[in-house]
This record gives sequence, C-alpha cells and structure tokens, in this order.
Amino acid sequence: MAKPEKHVFVCAQSRPPGHPRGSCAQLGCAAVLQTFAQQFEQGQLHGKFALTSTGCLGACDIGPTVIVYPDAVMYTKVKPEDVGEIISEHLQKGEPVERLKAPAAVWA
Amino acid sequence: MAKPEKHVFVCAQSRPPGHPRGSCAQLGCAAVLQTFAQQFEQGQLHGKFALTSTGCLGACDIGPTVIVYPDAVMYTKVKPEDVGEIISEHLQKGEPVERLKAPAAVWA
Repeated sequence: MAKPEKHVFVCAQSRPPGHPRGSCAQLGCAAVLQTFAQQFEQGQLHGKFALTSTGCLGACDIGPTVIVYPDAVMYTKVKPEDVGEIISEHLQKGEPVERLKAPAAVWA
Repeated sequence: MAKPEKHVFVCAQSRPPGHPRGSCAQLGCAAVLQTFAQQFEQGQLHGKFALTSTGCLGACDIGPTVIVYPDAVMYTKVKPEDVGEIISEHLQKGEPVERLKAPAAVWA
C-alpha cells in the first residue's frame, strides 16, 4: 500500500472465555473493525488512509482499542457507532475525538 | 501500556500454502517478531518502546514487513539478524536503517 496520511490500528486480540485479562474480542472489536472496513470501502478511503488489525495493544479491560498514527492517539471503549466520527473528525479533519481518548493513566 | 516513544508493528499475517499473495508468515515473520520480543525483554525496552503484531500490511511479496511509528518508516525483507540494528539505530538513536527501507513504489 502507499504510505497513508493516517494509519488506523484496531486491536483484534481474542482470549479464551474466562481469561482474567479479557480481550478486545470479548468487548466487540470485530464489529468495530468491520465498521471501519465498510466505511473505508464506502468512502474510498483506502490509499489515503490505512486500516490494520493488531494483536494486543495492552488496554484489555477498556477495549475495543484503536490507535491512530502518526498522531499516536489511542481510543478506548470504541463502539461501531463511534467509527464515523473518528473518520470524519480525526482522519479527515485532523481533529482527534476527545471524548474517546484513552485515560492519561493508560496512554500518556 | 504507556504511550511509547516508538511503536514497532510486525506483520504476522499467514495464508494457506499456495495462496497467490503469499504472506509474511511464509517469509519468516514469526522469527522476526520473536527476535524483537526477545531483544525488548533483554534490553528492558517495553514501556519506552512498544511491539505489536499485525494483520496484513500490504507488502506481502517483500515481507517480512515492519513499520515503525510515529516515524512511518516501513521496512521490508526483514530478517531476524536485522532486528538488533533496527533497535539500536532507529529506536534508540532515531536513525532509520536505510538499507532495509521499503522501496518508494511501495511506501512513499
């Protein structure tokens, strides 16, 4: 792929049911990733922006977790209905979505 | 995890044998990821730097592929014996390893 203006990484980590750390999969990351993929496709955003699934990003209890680089902004507790706002505000206007940012104790 | 100074993403994508796109798994990415993990552990680098495995980064025929953010530097054809240089030169000194950079046609 071409070097993107912004690169969205979505945690897709799963763990067995009952695992003490939980996981973003348990918290619904598959729907978040799918929503990003659909909106990238619909908006023809591939190329300008990139979307990649990842292993554990470390904030397992407050997932689903998304990181946007090169800005190094982490979002936590992301829901499918938040994806449109991340795309329109952060990716397209360059203004991170404050209400979804990870707590400073996690990512600062 | 704390916000890292540099975040290393290593493609861990696999595909079935004979798949026309191939994959970083087929090209040895597991050993690259393991070598990063070992050297992060040995050098006590976790915290200052982060290491995350990913799904496909798009350069399947010239993998294993590694991207370092926030610098947005992509490395291709990375071997386990290249990992030490990426850590010492790029992560620790801030000087990307020119000889391993992706071709401009892939990432520019």
